[in-house]
Amino acid sequence: MSNDKFITPRKLNGFWELMPKEQILFSQMLDTIEGVFKTNCFLPLDTPVLEYSEVLLAKSGGDTDKEVYRLIKGDTDMCLRYDLTVPLSRFVAMHQNELNFPFKRYQIGKVYRGERPQKGRFREFYQCDADIIGNESLPMVADAECVYLYEKCFEALNLKTNVHISNRKILAGYIEELDKTNVSNDIFIVLDKLNKISLETAISMLNELGLTEPESENLIKLTKMCGNFEEIKQNLCNFSKNDLFLQGLSELEEVANAIKLMGVKNAIFDLSIIRGHNYYTGTVFEAFLKNEETSIAIGGGGRYDNLCGYFSEKKMPGVGMSIGITRLFDLLLKSDYFSQKQTNEVECAIITFDETFDFGLTLLAQLRNNDIKAECLYASKSFKNKMKEANRRQIKYVLIIGEDEVNSKIYTLKDMETSEQFKLTLQEVAEKIKSDRMCN
Amino acid sequence: MSNDKFITPRKLNGFWELMPKEQILFSQMLDTIEGVFKTNCFLPLDTPVLEYSEVLLAKSGGDTDKEVYRLIKGDTDMCLRYDLTVPLSRFVAMHQNELNFPFKRYQIGKVYRGERPQKGRFREFYQCDADIIGNESLPMVADAECVYLYEKCFEALNLKTNVHISNRKILAGYIEELDKTNVSNDIFIVLDKLNKISLETAISMLNELGLTEPESENLIKLTKMCGNFEEIKQNLCNFSKNDLFLQGLSELEEVANAIKLMGVKNAIFDLSIIRGHNYYTGTVFEAFLKNEETSIAIGGGGRYDNLCGYFSEKKMPGVGMSIGITRLFDLLLKSDYFSQKQTNEVECAIITFDETFDFGLTLLAQLRNNDIKAECLYASKSFKNKMKEANRRQIKYVLIIGEDEVNSKIYTLKDMETSEQFKLTLQEVAEKIKSDRMCN
Repeated sequence: MSNDKFITPRKLNGFWELMPKEQILFSQMLDTIEGVFKTNCFLPLDTPVLEYSEVLLAKSGGDTDKEVYRLIKGDTDMCLRYDLTVPLSRFVAMHQNELNFPFKRYQIGKVYRGERPQKGRFREFYQCDADIIGNESLPMVADAECVYLYEKCFEALNLKTNVHISNRKILAGYIEELDKTNVSNDIFIVLDKLNKISLETAISMLNELGLTEPESENLIKLTKMCGNFEEIKQNLCNFSKNDLFLQGLSELEEVANAIKLMGVKNAIFDLSIIRGHNYYTGTVFEAFLKNEETSIAIGGGGRYDNLCGYFSEKKMPGVGMSIGITRLFDLLLKSDYFSQKQTNEVECAIITFDETFDFGLTLLAQLRNNDIKAECLYASKSFKNKMKEANRRQIKYVLIIGEDEVNSKIYTLKDMETSEQFKLTLQEVAEKIKSDRMCN
Repeated sequence: MSNDKFITPRKLNGFWELMPKEQILFSQMLDTIEGVFKTNCFLPLDTPVLEYSEVLLAKSGGDTDKEVYRLIKGDTDMCLRYDLTVPLSRFVAMHQNELNFPFKRYQIGKVYRGERPQKGRFREFYQCDADIIGNESLPMVADAECVYLYEKCFEALNLKTNVHISNRKILAGYIEELDKTNVSNDIFIVLDKLNKISLETAISMLNELGLTEPESENLIKLTKMCGNFEEIKQNLCNFSKNDLFLQGLSELEEVANAIKLMGVKNAIFDLSIIRGHNYYTGTVFEAFLKNEETSIAIGGGGRYDNLCGYFSEKKMPGVGMSIGITRLFDLLLKSDYFSQKQTNEVECAIITFDETFDFGLTLLAQLRNNDIKAECLYASKSFKNKMKEANRRQIKYVLIIGEDEVNSKIYTLKDMETSEQFKLTLQEVAEKIKSDRMCN
């Protein structure tokens, strides 16, 4: 029934929006993760969605990236944030004299990227970041904290995951030993693709970059090393005497020791973890959701040398982890993960007759004062329609209020799932619903 | 030490950003309000920050309001939302066949208005909205729910407030009786200013709009009626026989009855509540923070005839309440409201010596697994510096770990505020810190 009078209500393509039932589940996930961040002493930050373009595009020297949403209003040239890291660096640079270091902050917020929308990719989506920033220096135990944080987040979400850990200095050191530092970024790009291309292709690509076949084979062998730390260490000990290589190994050992002490169980040391090719300088890690068959990356992070390099001379090394929460939620929504979860929009419907409606309102307030999600179903007029509505909305409990109940103050609570009925005082009604909640 | 190499880190003017300690307090306020919304069976919605300009500017016929942040990317003309109501109407219009009505939704989110920044006004700020949308009709008890919701929110926040309630049909009906409907908007503008201008000025302004002096005086007398509902009703009974007037009175009575049944204590009936002059059509209310001297508006809302008028033929009446949470927080920050509130960023610092640091990490994990916010203070190297850091950061408890403690598994917990020391097992440490938390 379209009509020239009316504007078609539509949402921007690629912008995420959930229906209320899904939104409840998503919010519960965010709350769980936020709880873990808090227990781990990370502080909340909520930076503006808009920043000066000059600040946001500092990395790119002020050029607008095609993906960035940019707008000019009056004299002000602004962009919507495309990640939470640049706003963090701006904040830390501005407030470096007011903050305690190591500064541990988390931020859960929406970011904007004008990519072509595709499966699992959005233009507006949530990022869920925790970072630890040091002043001049930051011990490796901070990197271990991030790995621990992953494990605790996923444990709290009841998800089976592994965190794969490496240190980029190991590969970088070996590349240095091969005297190929000038093409190290290109080499990292090849190594990052190892699980997508054949061994032959990889060797020929490395060949083009000037590596001999034995060098390429050794490098690939190194990159494919994966297992517990002791195994890796055994294999690496005699692999190279390059300083950077040995530094990477020693840093990895520090992380391995610290996470062991902290009881991390699901860490795998895996030198194929590379994470892009510029930003991270030491420890790198990626979290994978374990399925029976597949293993899907749902977050990553690592150590960077200097958070605030664009803004100040002071050296601020940091380490951070991120959970791709929009993507993760999207995956879980398609699985049976949420099938047992109750959203409990309404826990108890108060079903009244015309003459008991006013009394019903007094009970409504008393139940809500007792923290029960109660409704009077006032849009349905008759008793019969109220019962139908409670059924249709799958409200678990109905409280039936006739004249007798008004007089006796003993109410009939009906469990709509089992059809059981209970005669209870209002206090007992509240207690029953609450105890029921605990069982879920 | 500015330098051409560096970009000055700066935040957009008028965009709100809190330091972590304040952010914790603000988040606690939002959590409290969200909890009340949930108990009252409102469902969460999280619409995109950007919308099609056509959709967002439907009200203004597509013209860009000067205040709106607008951007064009590729073929897409978009705006940042300036409130949460237009996105709600777009959402309801899109999903009207999937939602249960009355549809009760809350949204707490940032909105954007390019106003000149001034005291207490921001360009990016939070809105905190709860609305109830009916399908074709919506009983007045929904309006009462919104008033009840205010009281519960402010009760939970431990704030003294009043909600002032009116129904615009009462004044509109009287204006109709005076045969001045053609200038009713202008009259409302004058009446809305009554507490800012003198009686004489008001009368002369109304005079210019064609009202005689006795008419003006009567209208002002009507507008100034304020008190409990019974008083208002007594005064209004014989004031006018106009249908709209009587309908307004009868609707107000329904709201008065329902909130009385629901136990609302801080409602005041106050015909001077007008709330702009176009959008609201019936019940209107405003929440005021009560100080010893002043009374500051911190939210408002009311009944509107049709939420989705720009998008569809279907009539969707609604009623909504909003809390000006950014402004409220700003006020409270300047008062002593938060002086007793603990933010508890770190509850317990584990102070180790070099040789006990590894053991300290095992305790750190155990305390965090017990939901205690513990830190190892790994950036401070020596025992002495760790103690200094704990002091400077005002961490209440320190757990001192020497060789003896490693062997005996009995730890010294020191209360830094009282200097008391306790010899405890780790479990007892966790329990003591938790019980301490309960006392706050």
